[in-house]
Amino acid sequence: MFAEIITIGDEILIGQIVDTNSAFIAKELNKIGISVYQITSVQDEREHILQALKDAQTRARIVIVTGGLGPTKDDITKHTFCEFFNDKLVKNKAVLEHVEALFKSFVSTPISEVNRNQAMVPSRATVLYNANGTAPGMWMESEGVSFISLPGVPFEMKGLMLSAVIPKIVKDFNRPHIIHKTLVTYGLGESAIAEKIEDWEENLPPFVKLAYLPNLGKVRLRLTAKGSNRKILKAAIEDEFSKLYPLIGDIIYGIEDEETLEELVAKLFTAKKMTLSTAESCTGGKIAQKITALSGASNYFKGSVVSYATETKINVLKVPKELINKHSVVSAEVAKSMAENVKKLLKTDFSIATTGNAGPTKGDSNVEIGTVYIAIATPNGVFAEKFMMGKHRNRIVQKTVNKAFELLQKEILKI
Amino acid sequence: MFAEIITIGDEILIGQIVDTNSAFIAKELNKIGISVYQITSVQDEREHILQALKDAQTRARIVIVTGGLGPTKDDITKHTFCEFFNDKLVKNKAVLEHVEALFKSFVSTPISEVNRNQAMVPSRATVLYNANGTAPGMWMESEGVSFISLPGVPFEMKGLMLSAVIPKIVKDFNRPHIIHKTLVTYGLGESAIAEKIEDWEENLPPFVKLAYLPNLGKVRLRLTAKGSNRKILKAAIEDEFSKLYPLIGDIIYGIEDEETLEELVAKLFTAKKMTLSTAESCTGGKIAQKITALSGASNYFKGSVVSYATETKINVLKVPKELINKHSVVSAEVAKSMAENVKKLLKTDFSIATTGNAGPTKGDSNVEIGTVYIAIATPNGVFAEKFMMGKHRNRIVQKTVNKAFELLQKEILKI
Repeated sequence: MFAEIITIGDEILIGQIVDTNSAFIAKELNKIGISVYQITSVQDEREHILQALKDAQTRARIVIVTGGLGPTKDDITKHTFCEFFNDKLVKNKAVLEHVEALFKSFVSTPISEVNRNQAMVPSRATVLYNANGTAPGMWMESEGVSFISLPGVPFEMKGLMLSAVIPKIVKDFNRPHIIHKTLVTYGLGESAIAEKIEDWEENLPPFVKLAYLPNLGKVRLRLTAKGSNRKILKAAIEDEFSKLYPLIGDIIYGIEDEETLEELVAKLFTAKKMTLSTAESCTGGKIAQKITALSGASNYFKGSVVSYATETKINVLKVPKELINKHSVVSAEVAKSMAENVKKLLKTDFSIATTGNAGPTKGDSNVEIGTVYIAIATPNGVFAEKFMMGKHRNRIVQKTVNKAFELLQKEILKI
Repeated sequence: MFAEIITIGDEILIGQIVDTNSAFIAKELNKIGISVYQITSVQDEREHILQALKDAQTRARIVIVTGGLGPTKDDITKHTFCEFFNDKLVKNKAVLEHVEALFKSFVSTPISEVNRNQAMVPSRATVLYNANGTAPGMWMESEGVSFISLPGVPFEMKGLMLSAVIPKIVKDFNRPHIIHKTLVTYGLGESAIAEKIEDWEENLPPFVKLAYLPNLGKVRLRLTAKGSNRKILKAAIEDEFSKLYPLIGDIIYGIEDEETLEELVAKLFTAKKMTLSTAESCTGGKIAQKITALSGASNYFKGSVVSYATETKINVLKVPKELINKHSVVSAEVAKSMAENVKKLLKTDFSIATTGNAGPTKGDSNVEIGTVYIAIATPNGVFAEKFMMGKHRNRIVQKTVNKAFELLQKEILKI
């Protein structure tokens, strides 16, 4: 049983926004055992929407449509739905009351006819309550296929998916199970890994698929099993993993279920009641931002000194001027001094420091672009490592952030 | 003349990655006057790829395919191309030399047969040189439609688009002009704006289209004109803007060409030779990260103190303990003290400070979740404003960052 996703909106097709909705929807459907066959982005235009609905109907059992709703867009999309479903628009009282209540509480301007019209829905649609906005979700059936229309604003779409769409699919459909397990490796390229595990890969059972996902120095190996018996799938995946391990044990970095490295680190620090600070130069606050993006960060994270300018390293972090003059601002010595001093200044158990040259010009140091030092201070000492992170600014920063979390995780695990 | 984009890869359809490639490609095509009709994401599977190629061929003159290439994926995709184009794979000498050279310089493991096979391309394909990786781009023609296959790694795809694909399209095709101009508004909802400008919108010339793009407190109004004479399009857009201004002058925040607010601020600080620092609590380093994501940030940005914990505000930023006890850590007084002190500590002309409660729990302050104070210190003084940013952690942070740049821009413009 397949689902499809259709996103409506010229803003996607001119590249003004990135379609993040589809990934969210696909991930949530996947969790409940539903595979997405195709994702299609189409224009805010009657014929194009009709064609996409027709095409999807021939391939999928569930079609989720996002976008094309909202006070200024309802016109085309809802009339197109009515044409497709051979239905007509009627005023829905519950939606109207909700729109009126939202305006009363949150909007300073008076409610208009355009807003009231958001309560118009196809007469046979099941209305899905949108707690976060005025455009309702709509669930419609046509020739055995379920069409679900959701607003395109990510925040409203997510609310509707989690509160209404997923629960209804779980209730209404018999679904297979899909299990993923992903192994993260460092240090070998995609093809070199493929060669090492060729025999194993060729002997995978037919319901287990392997995918290679290379990205910024890591290659993730994802195993996916699909079938009706969850226990059998889980056992098969574990069995295959146990055969895979000895083949590439030296490059395995870890298992990735749904957790990111930042989430793992956050859990470890919270569980061990340890505290953390950062002193960031070339990463410019990105490590702090990643840490604080997760709720509960205040349990262990005390803050950061983003010492972008050399004088900030000297004035705030008290890195000795002589040390900088002797070794250059991008050096293991300065990275270690930054880590030690921010740890002392913010009174934490651990700290991370970064200093490097992300380009495009050489800046206050004369080192080659891409040179980065990461220092980790722990309750037991401090060390720094040097890395060459390539030539491209954003990639250098991103790789440094990834590497910093990796080094930090290894250290916190020792406590 | 339309283009289409096909992205190949199960990782998109299970939601493991967000498809950012399509937005990049669409934007670049748009800049040279080519509209994207549809974006389709399909599985790594022969039949599905074939069907997508066939469908796109009926609608578009240019089809850009990304993904499905790389040492472990080449097998399916390239054989499917050969089937579709009725061609066969041959070894390309230039690609082989490039792959061998890349391995020699950057890879510690010896080159394998799998890597060498990346040099196999359809015999009639024009090979596009990929400076950033081993999988070449391929330009193929079939029944008057150009198919361009690019690797899915964003970094490699972007390099090929800019160095090879766009220049070749510009050379080979007559293209219309597309001009966008976007007006940013604050303070009124989509429907209230629509009502105010209804008459104007209805009288737009047929080659000019209007789109409403609401997002986190802003509504952007995008005008798009398409046609063969660039001068006429430009004049029409300016003419329509001049009629639009008086209708909604009170809510217009600015014009957005291709520049973000951060880019505008960076230009202003650099031009005026002013310096900036930040003291971030609830934004956790995100303002610093946005600033340093742009190259040239070191011209004006000295750094940040991410004072996530209250004690960091006291110990590093020297916010008086009594002030915090008297007004609470989330208050105008503390925000102002943070801004003044970081400005002094980092010796800058301007500073931004944020303190607020992003939830989900109330933390060190008892204020309601969503309460945020932003302070701006300038050469002429300091002020703080209070905002209610809603209930959702990531949105609170994002809105605060947007608002901080907005306040800062207003102040730097006064210098």
